[in-house]
Amino acid sequence: MGINMERFQAQIEFILEVDKMKSIIRQTYIADGTRKENDAEHSWHMALMCVIFCEYANEEIDVLKTVKMAMIHDLVEIDAGDTYAYDSEDNKTKEMREKKAANRIFGLLPQDLESEFRGLWEEFEAQETNESKFVNALDKVQPLLLNDASGGRSWLEHGIKVSQVIKRNEFTADGSKALWQHAKQLIAKNVRKKNLIDG
Amino acid sequence: MGINMERFQAQIEFILEVDKMKSIIRQTYIADGTRKENDAEHSWHMALMCVIFCEYANEEIDVLKTVKMAMIHDLVEIDAGDTYAYDSEDNKTKEMREKKAANRIFGLLPQDLESEFRGLWEEFEAQETNESKFVNALDKVQPLLLNDASGGRSWLEHGIKVSQVIKRNEFTADGSKALWQHAKQLIAKNVRKKNLIDG
Repeated sequence: MGINMERFQAQIEFILEVDKMKSIIRQTYIADGTRKENDAEHSWHMALMCVIFCEYANEEIDVLKTVKMAMIHDLVEIDAGDTYAYDSEDNKTKEMREKKAANRIFGLLPQDLESEFRGLWEEFEAQETNESKFVNALDKVQPLLLNDASGGRSWLEHGIKVSQVIKRNEFTADGSKALWQHAKQLIAKNVRKKNLIDG
Repeated sequence: MGINMERFQAQIEFILEVDKMKSIIRQTYIADGTRKENDAEHSWHMALMCVIFCEYANEEIDVLKTVKMAMIHDLVEIDAGDTYAYDSEDNKTKEMREKKAANRIFGLLPQDLESEFRGLWEEFEAQETNESKFVNALDKVQPLLLNDASGGRSWLEHGIKVSQVIKRNEFTADGSKALWQHAKQLIAKNVRKKNLIDG
């Protein structure tokens, strides 16, 4: 076959390691409200949103790049865990924990793929490119859609205020004005339904 | 904004509908053997395999097309359910049930996206193009990797014979000789470990 077996084995090892994403539980409930979502499900949902909603990105985007970014944007949580968006204590140590995780997890890959995927994760975190702005918008809108569908279950459990949701979405419009427009309507609806605290 | 709201709402409806993939349970266990995998997780894992293993496709492939195909290849199971690969009774009615499901689920999308994604699903099923051969190979290899990692749990529960696994993988080499080479090694190892019945 002439394939580099060391390279191939590294790729297999990476693909098995990332299976752990299926056991990283997020705070958001799936749409029917029966249980919390995990990182693998969230990443699939976001990657599919990239291809379904790409026409609503504010700027020209490379769709394959956004899909790759969506699929790997939470891999660091295998080691660093899911940091709840509204937990300010945990968020203080998040960056350090996630960098260490990125070193280990992307480091399983052969060097060229390590560079590509670690680079995509860093690009996602920096939110400076068209693609990363769009994927970050989806990363905020996807849980909003699920929170709305599940009757605000996660918001109610944590006593979340509308101001917190708006603060968390401060850059959503930078990625997609259309998605932010929709998000604002869902937020207003959930304040009316008392799923979000008006404050 | 000037966006077509009917179109946008159809896309939102589709994205919420496919959330049900998170509740379609497969027969394969996740790598640590603790529980069975669902279709959303399987689709994410396969889509990520598309980008990590694309260099091992036998023929030139459009990677974005394979990723889209991987993400939607099991959507019909929302209505048709997961048909276990080794259940011959269920497999008789599978095609009819899945076509009906495709009509409903892809039919939620605006017409251009319906054509694209229904087309990708039909292409996946027909296994005639380079992309669909590769994605079909991943669809067989991904559960093999998980079965191997989980100590053959699903095979043992169903008393699966090595001949059934080989029959199921009859086209894997058409998509990727390298992945089939690896699959053969895993199959042989699991016969030795008595996770697969030698027959």
